[in-house]
Amino acid sequence: MQDLAIGRVFTLLEPGPVVMVTTHADGHDNVMAISWTMVLDFSGKFAITTGPWNHSYQALIGSGECVVAVPTAPLLDRVVGVGTCSGRAVDKFDRFALRRLPAAQVRAPLLADCLANIECRVVDVVRAHDIVVLQAVAAHWDETATQTALIHAVGDGTFVEDGRRFDRREAMRSKLPAGIDTGRPSH
Amino acid sequence: MQDLAIGRVFTLLEPGPVVMVTTHADGHDNVMAISWTMVLDFSGKFAITTGPWNHSYQALIGSGECVVAVPTAPLLDRVVGVGTCSGRAVDKFDRFALRRLPAAQVRAPLLADCLANIECRVVDVVRAHDIVVLQAVAAHWDETATQTALIHAVGDGTFVEDGRRFDRREAMRSKLPAGIDTGRPSH
Repeated sequence: MQDLAIGRVFTLLEPGPVVMVTTHADGHDNVMAISWTMVLDFSGKFAITTGPWNHSYQALIGSGECVVAVPTAPLLDRVVGVGTCSGRAVDKFDRFALRRLPAAQVRAPLLADCLANIECRVVDVVRAHDIVVLQAVAAHWDETATQTALIHAVGDGTFVEDGRRFDRREAMRSKLPAGIDTGRPSH
Repeated sequence: MQDLAIGRVFTLLEPGPVVMVTTHADGHDNVMAISWTMVLDFSGKFAITTGPWNHSYQALIGSGECVVAVPTAPLLDRVVGVGTCSGRAVDKFDRFALRRLPAAQVRAPLLADCLANIECRVVDVVRAHDIVVLQAVAAHWDETATQTALIHAVGDGTFVEDGRRFDRREAMRSKLPAGIDTGRPSH
């Protein structure tokens, strides 16, 4: 995996893909699937909705760290599997053949089969709304990936993959951080 | 526009589409484009990232109301237009030929050309992170729409439209609110 500038992290999350979140606590890794995420600024700060109903929540809050991994369509059934069983009962990495790689800044693992991995620290928890605020501290991109279309959960059990792309870089230029429209990624 | 159950509102936002947000204050309507949104629960509560840098912010906070309208690809250039000029300088409804309809519960207008409209009240503002928490109080769906693919901003000036759809309702059933996989919408 290639290093990805923190300033590009928001472009992985702004389109609203389903993601997987890995954690590490008490000598064990875990992974959950999350669709409820939101960019907060251009600096790699973003939010996820999660709470005690997720087995990973205690590890996330206790360790203050996680990795947010961005899958593409070939991983859909493994994402659905991860999202529909609990780390309490099974080792999801084994069951869904998810290969791990060590992260640079956090103890949670990267997911080798994902298009991108974002290493994060928890910077705040807004308990009234079950919002966890994360700050990207490192990010990685699989520059060899041939499948780069993201997947989006609709919420009713269906999913959609990225389809037609529209280039509006010229019209949007005044609203974009400098340099964001050049270089990788633009999945 | 057809009434849409509040319990289905999250399925419009979970896939992460770009949306338009209308407000009303001091006798004037305004509209902005937003990509940073996040579902908070299945009851129609969701968050958006916005702050004083948006001209609409004062109207949103002052009135405590807005409409979140969900466009499809044929509206892309109007959404880009709305997102790249300020209501301080222009009447965006005129400039981008956006037809308004009266809402049922709020003074902000519905956008007749959008696939769906969600009438909202502001229920909290998390100023430390520029998060505004909204609660849907009514929602509407254009049941005559032939174009139902949503659009997603990547953040680098490109946009992607919903493409291939995957049905995983059976596998996801344990995680879905009862009845969500039947009836409209599933854009």
